[in-house]
Amino acid sequence: IAKGAGMIAPDMATMLAFFFTDARIKSKTLGRALSEAVDGTFNSIMVDNDMSTNDTVLAFANGLSGGAEIKAGRGAAGFTGLLRDVALKLAQMIVKDGEGATRFVEIDIRGAASQKEARLAARTIASSMLVKTAFFGGDPNWGRIMAALGRAGIRMNPARVDIFFGAVPVVRQGLDAGNERRAAAVMKKKEVKVRVELHMGRGVHKLWTTDLSHNYVKINSSYRT
Amino acid sequence: IAKGAGMIAPDMATMLAFFFTDARIKSKTLGRALSEAVDGTFNSIMVDNDMSTNDTVLAFANGLSGGAEIKAGRGAAGFTGLLRDVALKLAQMIVKDGEGATRFVEIDIRGAASQKEARLAARTIASSMLVKTAFFGGDPNWGRIMAALGRAGIRMNPARVDIFFGAVPVVRQGLDAGNERRAAAVMKKKEVKVRVELHMGRGVHKLWTTDLSHNYVKINSSYRT
Repeated sequence: IAKGAGMIAPDMATMLAFFFTDARIKSKTLGRALSEAVDGTFNSIMVDNDMSTNDTVLAFANGLSGGAEIKAGRGAAGFTGLLRDVALKLAQMIVKDGEGATRFVEIDIRGAASQKEARLAARTIASSMLVKTAFFGGDPNWGRIMAALGRAGIRMNPARVDIFFGAVPVVRQGLDAGNERRAAAVMKKKEVKVRVELHMGRGVHKLWTTDLSHNYVKINSSYRT
Repeated sequence: IAKGAGMIAPDMATMLAFFFTDARIKSKTLGRALSEAVDGTFNSIMVDNDMSTNDTVLAFANGLSGGAEIKAGRGAAGFTGLLRDVALKLAQMIVKDGEGATRFVEIDIRGAASQKEARLAARTIASSMLVKTAFFGGDPNWGRIMAALGRAGIRMNPARVDIFFGAVPVVRQGLDAGNERRAAAVMKKKEVKVRVELHMGRGVHKLWTTDLSHNYVKINSSYRT
């Protein structure tokens, strides 16, 4: 169960998620599985960049399944994978439910110099108001993505960067790939995937976010907590 | 001369500022004066958080004033102060000219544990979309400011925090000061000052920013670069 992006208010518990399982698993093992499951899911979503100070993810296990105990280490890999699948689904549902969201956007960074830089690149793109308003307008404005990468504080060489909107290459080695019309068609869809290939190393990170719409401003400027 | 916040597009030179003086001053001394002058001015403004990769501030001196040469060190203090005054005025004009801006907001952080944390606190508040939409709505929503402080990664104790909108105390030691109506009147003005007293140390930072309006979204979602 998860609730999320419609109540990002400071005096309320905001993003809340609860997992319930009848698996037989010790608290510590469950905790570790949960940490692994949230890393690329609940910790990889952004709606308005305002991290709440009250976010909570909890997992409960009552052991009533009757199955064998799930042991720590390799034995927990299958369970952790399933927990991760559910976490990913819930986390993405929170983004789709984001305030004023009209598009669901995946930012997929590949080839960064490190994992940390891949995450930083994804977060910088996803938190850019210029990028998010371009998504709202259905505008294949790759220049704003390049600019976000340029100020992200990561190692990069613009001449090596490839960018794809869906399957359409829009930037090849830092230059316009000449697919404006096809890219515009991709950007008008409800779900958009943006892939950036930095060609600097092996760092990868996926993150899910929304556009920035008139409705976001309306909701957050006119309601009084 | 400065131009700014209406052309934050990735393939254009964006924030540009030029200083011209007939003072007699060596290039190195002028460069140092300029660095000092931009620190609390051009480097303390935010409109939409999207730092351009093309911002430029240049100073030119032709020495035609006929006055004595302005020497490095203490001798340059007066000149640097004047340069700073002009820089502050220009920087604030850029913010007032910000895309879609309806309000000019000063964020004044005092009593942070360090200068660095004061700056971080100011930047976190000024880049919060929740805070900026509240400014647009003229909403004295101090909870959003507290939440931004809470996630800023600074040392703080909520029970010590005081917040003022203009001269009106809205938070006293972390709690509502009961001045809702007076605070709302302040927030409806074109220029709003927000002062945060953290009571943790001597770190101070001032920053100038705008609200986040419908027009910002309109401008940036509908124009095509």
